[in-house]
Amino acid sequence: MANEHSAFTFELIEQARTRLTGRISLTPVMTSSRLDALVGARLFFKCENFQKGGAFKARGATNAVFALGETQAQRGVATHSSGNHAAALARAAVLRGIPAFVVMPDNTPQAKRAAVALYGAQVSWCAPTLAARERAASEIVAATGATLIHPYNDHAVMAGQGTAAVELLGQVPELDLLLCPVGGGGLLAGSAVAATHLKPGIRVIGVEPAGADDAARSFRAGRLLPPERAPVTIADGLRGALGEKPFAAIRGRVEDIVTVTEESIVRAMRQLWEVLKIIIEPSAAVPYAALLTQRDKLRGSHIGVVLSGGNLDLDRLPWQSPPPAS
Amino acid sequence: MANEHSAFTFELIEQARTRLTGRISLTPVMTSSRLDALVGARLFFKCENFQKGGAFKARGATNAVFALGETQAQRGVATHSSGNHAAALARAAVLRGIPAFVVMPDNTPQAKRAAVALYGAQVSWCAPTLAARERAASEIVAATGATLIHPYNDHAVMAGQGTAAVELLGQVPELDLLLCPVGGGGLLAGSAVAATHLKPGIRVIGVEPAGADDAARSFRAGRLLPPERAPVTIADGLRGALGEKPFAAIRGRVEDIVTVTEESIVRAMRQLWEVLKIIIEPSAAVPYAALLTQRDKLRGSHIGVVLSGGNLDLDRLPWQSPPPAS
Repeated sequence: MANEHSAFTFELIEQARTRLTGRISLTPVMTSSRLDALVGARLFFKCENFQKGGAFKARGATNAVFALGETQAQRGVATHSSGNHAAALARAAVLRGIPAFVVMPDNTPQAKRAAVALYGAQVSWCAPTLAARERAASEIVAATGATLIHPYNDHAVMAGQGTAAVELLGQVPELDLLLCPVGGGGLLAGSAVAATHLKPGIRVIGVEPAGADDAARSFRAGRLLPPERAPVTIADGLRGALGEKPFAAIRGRVEDIVTVTEESIVRAMRQLWEVLKIIIEPSAAVPYAALLTQRDKLRGSHIGVVLSGGNLDLDRLPWQSPPPAS
Repeated sequence: MANEHSAFTFELIEQARTRLTGRISLTPVMTSSRLDALVGARLFFKCENFQKGGAFKARGATNAVFALGETQAQRGVATHSSGNHAAALARAAVLRGIPAFVVMPDNTPQAKRAAVALYGAQVSWCAPTLAARERAASEIVAATGATLIHPYNDHAVMAGQGTAAVELLGQVPELDLLLCPVGGGGLLAGSAVAATHLKPGIRVIGVEPAGADDAARSFRAGRLLPPERAPVTIADGLRGALGEKPFAAIRGRVEDIVTVTEESIVRAMRQLWEVLKIIIEPSAAVPYAALLTQRDKLRGSHIGVVLSGGNLDLDRLPWQSPPPAS
């Protein structure tokens, strides 16, 4: 991890770029004239669903694991995660040849459980609350001496996530708006620092499910507000509460954090499946859901959309079994 | 259409390449270290699911439409098709500004119906038999003067389909085996002529559902055999009977036509969805299904696999509702 008391700067993202070379995929950008016509703008989808492990989380986790000193690394790494970060950390640990300890909420989708198991991490289960996750992870760290790699409240993780925006701006220099999903805020923070550094004046907007809107409320209040209730969203990757470190990086760089309904997430996800012919998970559809409801404000823009991942249970598609009311 | 009495040569495919420039997509090739490890070979997936209209059929239909003389073209084009060719022809007709008349079997999946409707073709419905399809199409041709563009028994269509293999060999020159699905045989014929011309000695193998195995039986018999019964397969794009012209091109160039079970098609399709994170239709999974059962014979090969398309009903995935017995 980077020095936790230093600022989160573009330099950390540049270092992450070097560290990640050869260890993750350069993901493609997809376009669709049909979707452009629907939205009335030029859309550039950054396909992190094709990333190693099926999500952008490979970037942050791999950067954090390879930033550790040798002695510290040998004791292993630990985390609590709704799934994609856990799988990414497990993979990074395999690459470095060190143990990984993972705490997962017991409502984690099967596809994400399988990904973690694939990389041989040692898994513990806990209740699906932030408190239960943090407690279980602390116990493991105390018992093993492993380094906790938080899924988003960590500068090395945020720096790794920011490399997706660096790549995207290299692939599509004409972007004037960048949309990211927001859960804990790691991707949005890294993206905002990267994009505003490389292209001053670019607009960066976060999109969050209305059923897990602590980031939008915090952004408006100007201070970190805790979730008002347990998150209720099909976007399982965005159920985490906004972290303090991502929030500090987002403030002043992000234009807005907007929210979308569950229904619009499912509609957006299905439309992207049908038109782009790619598999994305509900969380990845969240930014596009916002585009569908904000068409008038976007006409003629060149919009980058980070499709954050593609891991989900193919037996339970949301248009077949609506998310349970809670 | 090319002169129907001439031979089907690589020159027709080269002409198609020129004609298609700017009118279709150059599709990407995907790879996966995980699938390579599973099969024990290097796999290169040619993603025709990302082609215009979501299937390789854009190649043949567009070539055939733009090969027509001006006077003939103005009377329009007609076809009968299980769906992807119909949508491709409708799109090509729009590009050329001429009418399209389409006969579709009444069991065509919703996604394929929608694609045809999208391009504004005039649709007639018929029973899902080859005889009913041909009769309905003949009536339209007689009434309108439109040119019938057969979905596969046509040299211009076959030539267009062959351009996918030309592209793939440009993208992956080291291929030593090419696998294509077989229904009517247009893709396999074009691919076989292209691949064996560009790389003499390359192996080309066709793969067909066991429930629609007329091509495999014909290949073994050395003469065109009609289907023994109505096709029974979830691979709706491969229900057509092998055409005489494709068969002539396939003989002597294709090493074998092998068959796969319905169960293996569904398993292969699901595995490709999960690992590649892309949406392919059942027909497109048929070659990979063969790979999963023939691992030992393939060790170390560089194998090109044409993923033929990605159009299917997302409400009815095959692992959720097994194909009805017939």
